[in-house]
Amino acid sequence: MTNARSIRLKSRPKGAASHENFGMTQDTLPDPGEGEFLVRILWLSLDPYMRGRMNAGKSYTPPVEIGGIMTAQAVGEVVASRHPGFAEGDIVLGGFGWTDHAISDGRDVVKVPEGPPISTALGVLGMPGFTAWTGLGEITGAAQGETILVSAATGAVGAMAGQLAKTRGLRTIGVAGGPEKCAFAMDELGYDACLDHRALDAAALTTAVAEAAPQGIDVYFENVGGDTLSAAVMNMNDFGRIALCGMIAWYDGANVEKAAPLPLIWRNILTRRLRVRGFIVFDHYADFPTFHAEVAPMVMDGRIKVREDVTEGLENAPDAFFRMLEGGNFGKTLVKVAER
Amino acid sequence: MTNARSIRLKSRPKGAASHENFGMTQDTLPDPGEGEFLVRILWLSLDPYMRGRMNAGKSYTPPVEIGGIMTAQAVGEVVASRHPGFAEGDIVLGGFGWTDHAISDGRDVVKVPEGPPISTALGVLGMPGFTAWTGLGEITGAAQGETILVSAATGAVGAMAGQLAKTRGLRTIGVAGGPEKCAFAMDELGYDACLDHRALDAAALTTAVAEAAPQGIDVYFENVGGDTLSAAVMNMNDFGRIALCGMIAWYDGANVEKAAPLPLIWRNILTRRLRVRGFIVFDHYADFPTFHAEVAPMVMDGRIKVREDVTEGLENAPDAFFRMLEGGNFGKTLVKVAER
Repeated sequence: MTNARSIRLKSRPKGAASHENFGMTQDTLPDPGEGEFLVRILWLSLDPYMRGRMNAGKSYTPPVEIGGIMTAQAVGEVVASRHPGFAEGDIVLGGFGWTDHAISDGRDVVKVPEGPPISTALGVLGMPGFTAWTGLGEITGAAQGETILVSAATGAVGAMAGQLAKTRGLRTIGVAGGPEKCAFAMDELGYDACLDHRALDAAALTTAVAEAAPQGIDVYFENVGGDTLSAAVMNMNDFGRIALCGMIAWYDGANVEKAAPLPLIWRNILTRRLRVRGFIVFDHYADFPTFHAEVAPMVMDGRIKVREDVTEGLENAPDAFFRMLEGGNFGKTLVKVAER
Repeated sequence: MTNARSIRLKSRPKGAASHENFGMTQDTLPDPGEGEFLVRILWLSLDPYMRGRMNAGKSYTPPVEIGGIMTAQAVGEVVASRHPGFAEGDIVLGGFGWTDHAISDGRDVVKVPEGPPISTALGVLGMPGFTAWTGLGEITGAAQGETILVSAATGAVGAMAGQLAKTRGLRTIGVAGGPEKCAFAMDELGYDACLDHRALDAAALTTAVAEAAPQGIDVYFENVGGDTLSAAVMNMNDFGRIALCGMIAWYDGANVEKAAPLPLIWRNILTRRLRVRGFIVFDHYADFPTFHAEVAPMVMDGRIKVREDVTEGLENAPDAFFRMLEGGNFGKTLVKVAER
C-alpha cells in the first residue's frame, strides 16, 4: 500500500481558474494487481489545454469530472510491477495526472527512450515538440524560403516550431510577452525577429508584423488567438496556411469582448484564400516515431535548445498552472514532483 | 460610332448600397480599331461579390474606381469586328461591366459554346456553377455518403452545389430564406432537407441543422456568414471541411454586431479539427474545361435545373442588385439588356 497525494478538480472555474477550483487529497493506493504496476511520479507537465478540460463543455476529449484527478502527462519510475512489459526501474510516460503515485495497467504508457534528459519526454521530445513538428509538416507543409509567424514563440510548442522552422530554411518571426522572452527568442532560439505583444496594441502589432515580414506571412502557427491572430491574418500572403492548435488568450473566456470581429477574420480568410486547419496532436501519433528519430539527435547535440520552467513540489502545481495561463512561464512548464 | 449606356460607381456606400451610389452615363464609343471588336450586351450577371468591389478596401481584386463602370461578367453578340479571332454574330462572354455596348481587344473574352441557352454561361455553366463545382471537388473533396450543408441553397452557387452533391451521393441539406425557396430546394433541386433561416433564430437554426443532419455535417458550403455559419460550425463532424467562397450576410458591414464571437468559432475549428479554406474561383480556371465537359450535358438533359431571376433593362440593374443582396432574388440574378 502506498500513499498518493493528488490534486483534484473541486469546481469548474467561472472565468479565470483559481485555487478554489482545486483540492489536494491523500489516498491509499492498493498494491499493484496482476498486470499492473506502481509508478512514482518524477515530472508533471502543465499545458494550456488543461484549462479546457476544466470546463463542462464538449471538446475533443471529455472534461475532468468534478472530484477527478486533474489530467496531465507525467514521467515516473516504476517502483513495483506485476506487469510483464514493465520492470522496476523503468522510466515511463503516461497520462498519470496531477499526482505523485499512480497504478497503471500499461495502457497508453510508453517507456521513455534513454539518452536525452527524461523531462524532455514532456517537452521538446513529447507532446509539445511533436505538436510543433506536426503543425509544420502535415498541417501546413511549411517550406524553405517561406516566412512563418509563431505565437507564444518561447513556449513549449512555439520554441520548437520556431527552431525547427529555422533548420528548414524559413524566415522565423516570433511573438512573445516581454523583452526578456523576445531577447531569448532571437539570441537562443534563432528567430529572425521577435515582437513583444505586451508592448504593442493590436494595431501596432499588425504594423510590427508587416515590418518584420516585408514579404508577408506564409504560415502562421496559432497558439494564442487574441491580437496576435488578427495581426497575423492581416499580414498573411494569399494562399497562406494557419495551423490552429491553441488559443490560450481566450481559454478562460477572457478577452472575448476584445476579440476581432468574426466577419473581419472570415473576410480575410476568403479574400486571401487562406487555409485554416485545426489540429490535435493525438490524431497524429502514428507519426511519433518519425518525429522522435528526427528530433532526438537535435536535442542531444544542442541544435534544439531546451528551456524548462520548473516548479518544485506537487502542491505548487496550481500556482504554476495559473502563472502559465497568464504567460508568466518561460519555457516548458514542468512540476518536479520527486527526485529520481 | 455607337452610343453606350453604362452604370457607374458614383460614390462608395456606407452600409447598404443605394441608388445614390450609382449613376448612368451615355457615352459615344469609337468604332473598333485594329484588333478590336464591338459587343452588344445581351445578358448581364449580378453577383454578390460585386458589393465588395464597391468598397475601397483591399480585396482579391482592386475595387471599382469612383466614376468607373460597375464590374460584371456579361454575354453579348459581336456586332463589328477587326479582330481575327472574333467575327460578327459570335456570342461572347467577358467582363464587360454594367453597360449595353463595349469595345474589347479580346483579352479574357471567350466564345460561348453552342448548345445550352446563352444566359447559362453566366450561371450554371459560368462562374457561379464553376464555383460550386470547385468547392465540392478541389476545395473540400465532398464524397459519397457524406452530409453537406449548403447556405443560400437556391442561389446561383448554392443551387449547383446542392444538385451536384446529390448526383455524387451526398445527403444534401440546404438553408434558404423563406418557405417558397425551401419548397423549391426540396422539390426541384433535390435537397433532402431545407431550413428556412428567416423563420429561425440562431439557436433554433442550430437545432434544426442537428435534426436535419443526425450524422452531423461533413462539408459546409459557405456563401453567407451570419447565423448559418454558426449553425453549421456547431454541427460539424470532426475533420469536417468548410469551403468559404462568400459571406453575403456581412457584405454591407451589416449584421456584424450580431456575428458569433470569433473565439467561439475558432475554438470549434480547433476542437473539431476543421479545415476552412477560402477560395476564389478565378484561381481555378485551368479546370474550367473539365467542369464544362461534365456539367453542360447535365444542364442540356435537365439533370441540373436552371432557375433564373431576370430583370429587364440595364437601367433596372441597381434595383435588381439591391434585391439580390437582401436575398430577394430567386435563382441566378440576371439583367436582360437586349434581345438577341
